[in-house]
Amino acid sequence: MRVLGVDPGLTRCGVGVVEGVAGRPLTLRGVGVVRTPADADLGSRLVAIEQGIEQWLDEHRPEFVAVERVFSQHNVRTVMGTAQASAVAMLCAARRGIPVALHTPSEVKAAVTGSGRADKAQIGAMVTRLLRLDAPPKPADAADALALAICHIWRAPAQNRLQQAVAAHRTAYASKGRTA
Amino acid sequence: MRVLGVDPGLTRCGVGVVEGVAGRPLTLRGVGVVRTPADADLGSRLVAIEQGIEQWLDEHRPEFVAVERVFSQHNVRTVMGTAQASAVAMLCAARRGIPVALHTPSEVKAAVTGSGRADKAQIGAMVTRLLRLDAPPKPADAADALALAICHIWRAPAQNRLQQAVAAHRTAYASKGRTA
Repeated sequence: MRVLGVDPGLTRCGVGVVEGVAGRPLTLRGVGVVRTPADADLGSRLVAIEQGIEQWLDEHRPEFVAVERVFSQHNVRTVMGTAQASAVAMLCAARRGIPVALHTPSEVKAAVTGSGRADKAQIGAMVTRLLRLDAPPKPADAADALALAICHIWRAPAQNRLQQAVAAHRTAYASKGRTA
Repeated sequence: MRVLGVDPGLTRCGVGVVEGVAGRPLTLRGVGVVRTPADADLGSRLVAIEQGIEQWLDEHRPEFVAVERVFSQHNVRTVMGTAQASAVAMLCAARRGIPVALHTPSEVKAAVTGSGRADKAQIGAMVTRLLRLDAPPKPADAADALALAICHIWRAPAQNRLQQAVAAHRTAYASKGRTA
């Protein structure tokens, strides 16, 4: 199973591709950050994020995209940008019929460290260990994206297969709708 | 000047096209609502909104897109969906090099009714009068989209020309970047 994890953000959008199945060693396929200039207008920033995500989808052909679920309660100042960046990532995936899964930050932390309240350093350390890297991926957004992908791979495989079937059905239905 | 106003929302996204210049009678070119089913997954809903907005852009070729500015303070339960729908609308416009303007709800209310605290009925009544319609557009999201477009037309024309020039420059720059 190949999963693209996306830690959404307007200034830095973490992206990471992990391949593997639950219970077996995982493989890092790629990690990086899509950046947009803070002084650009919002529309241009969203277009730049779309182009960045599209490149990652083209290059890595993931079977799932896992995006961090954004809550409006936290960090009110930046939450709108985060919601907008996550919308672009979900749109890019759904347009290709790739199933999108949302995981909360505490689900991701609990999956990779055993604690839903783990800090950035702990997540970085576990991502480094699980993917057998020499050092934690930098910046933290990149490590978080990999943690999201790992979290997704470790979810119940049956649940993923169901979601994939639903997405395939929806894509077929949507294509029919367009030509009708 | 032809402006597409977008009142963003996941369940109902109001869209309205108004043509005219400040100080002259305005003309309604089209009004409607892009709807997505509440039980569909978020990715599919964003794709449906993209397809809807693209159709409006194709059909009406607006020179500006005016989107309601979303605040995280209000209506926490639905604000994330609103932010995500607005991101899709801004993305569709910016991808075509169409300048995007954000107006706050109180700016729009003040522009069309003279009061930043006007209610839905007042906005509907003024949109009906300004566009010489027989009845207020329904639902309220459709009327709000028209009010956004009117608000934008009535902004300083010089400011709009500047924004258009910046958008044209950015589009030229982005195309260069892609081929490099």
